[in-house]
Amino acid sequence: MSSFSRLVRFLAKNGKTYYGDAILPEGVTDIAKTKQARVIKGDIFGKYEVTDQVADVRLLLAPLALEDVKTVRCLGLNYALHAKEAGLPLPKWPVLFYKPVTSLSGPTDPIPVHPIAQESLGLDYEVELVFVIGKEARDVPESKALDYVFGYAVGNDVSHRDWQVARGGSQWSMGKGFDGWAPWGPGIVSTSVIKDPQTLQITTRVNGKVVQDSNTSDQIFNVKQTIAFLSRGHTLLPGDLIWTGTPSGVGFGRKPQVWLEDGDICEVEIEGVGIVSNKVEFTKEDTAKL
Amino acid sequence: MSSFSRLVRFLAKNGKTYYGDAILPEGVTDIAKTKQARVIKGDIFGKYEVTDQVADVRLLLAPLALEDVKTVRCLGLNYALHAKEAGLPLPKWPVLFYKPVTSLSGPTDPIPVHPIAQESLGLDYEVELVFVIGKEARDVPESKALDYVFGYAVGNDVSHRDWQVARGGSQWSMGKGFDGWAPWGPGIVSTSVIKDPQTLQITTRVNGKVVQDSNTSDQIFNVKQTIAFLSRGHTLLPGDLIWTGTPSGVGFGRKPQVWLEDGDICEVEIEGVGIVSNKVEFTKEDTAKL
Repeated sequence: MSSFSRLVRFLAKNGKTYYGDAILPEGVTDIAKTKQARVIKGDIFGKYEVTDQVADVRLLLAPLALEDVKTVRCLGLNYALHAKEAGLPLPKWPVLFYKPVTSLSGPTDPIPVHPIAQESLGLDYEVELVFVIGKEARDVPESKALDYVFGYAVGNDVSHRDWQVARGGSQWSMGKGFDGWAPWGPGIVSTSVIKDPQTLQITTRVNGKVVQDSNTSDQIFNVKQTIAFLSRGHTLLPGDLIWTGTPSGVGFGRKPQVWLEDGDICEVEIEGVGIVSNKVEFTKEDTAKL
Repeated sequence: MSSFSRLVRFLAKNGKTYYGDAILPEGVTDIAKTKQARVIKGDIFGKYEVTDQVADVRLLLAPLALEDVKTVRCLGLNYALHAKEAGLPLPKWPVLFYKPVTSLSGPTDPIPVHPIAQESLGLDYEVELVFVIGKEARDVPESKALDYVFGYAVGNDVSHRDWQVARGGSQWSMGKGFDGWAPWGPGIVSTSVIKDPQTLQITTRVNGKVVQDSNTSDQIFNVKQTIAFLSRGHTLLPGDLIWTGTPSGVGFGRKPQVWLEDGDICEVEIEGVGIVSNKVEFTKEDTAKL
């Protein structure tokens, strides 16, 4: 039994959906470029096997199926420069919020914008380093924290600032939880490939223009500290996702402020992981099936 | 195939765990008093059958198994008098926050209080009407909203005010998400039994003393409005829980403020549903298994 290096979940050309270990050409590290993968059989959080069966990738999906994720935890204000642009003091403890699992979507899915998020200004991007918990964790000390990491990905914590703040009544949930507002992927890079998560370049481009460009070394609470903190009195389960906050450069913090619009292409990237690229799509009320 | 009236999940005297339909003596409505239940077979959110097999109840468990719940949504400030005691204006839109599924626990489980929630004052109770989503819902109009309700229960949204506010950095998540801080039950009452969720007496007793005593008629956003709002652009899934906020009388709003202490017995009750009764237990760091 070998372990995966770059886990992908994908629709294959044969019409089936698989977990697989990405096959990348020499020198390529962007998992989004995966054309073939070795099929994985078994329980990815238990006993599994990277088989010799090679499948052709038609479409990369969100790296974990919805039923394999229980909870999506996120940190706010976890980069020093981002806290400054938000006009807020550095937090003494990590600021925790949640996104519902229904907000998760694939690395090239559109970002649907519901009419109630079109009524006022505030649609924004947030590139984040995402990590996946690999085994049950509770009261984990920092010194052992990285043992609980299954792997790393990149995500876009799509946010609507008016719903997040003014309309949200102080809680960020409604402004961050819409269906499809957590595209992530393009796959999950194992801890054997990314040994140090605090040295990764992290970038956003909107319609090709760089708008966020930082490094995970600027995180206020690093991955180890985050696991130690979040597991205090809280059981973290295999498949739980932790989104580690966004660096400076969000539309909200710009002068003048800049908001995403219908048709914009938003690309988030982390060095050694790859690119998640999504098109903003303004939608109508979904009353069709009622 | 018949439908359940009062769904319970329980450890039976034969050592097995079942879903069942509670058998209550004439005139008894507190599901916590269930001694026997008719065993349910099948998928409770799909095809199931209330069988003729009667099992003896040893212990009532949280009404849904952890794997049957995806997301726990909660409303803040949803009773007019509670908003007043918190010193906050009535919200124009429902205030949404989440609790992780790992906070869910059974109707008589202890409430474990981790050392980091013992460092400062603020441990508090919040009785809430909880409802369960029965089928996938998105962009549901108020007129059809109750069709999506699977049933009603009572829960205690245990909260630590210092972690919720000051240490939480404005987000309530850390102060409400500890393991076992969402005891609920004692079962789920079907919509054929509770036809109108807006006329129910809702009460908390601490060590036998009444501290919250209100009626769901005082809710700012009723169940219909809550489903319509929360489903806008958000898919609600079968088994999702929605906690509808707490009435006035919490320890935080009292003069002087009153906090739960080690050994306190906290009982929350909703008319026609029953009692959830839990003992507060201060615990130590859980490093045993590391």
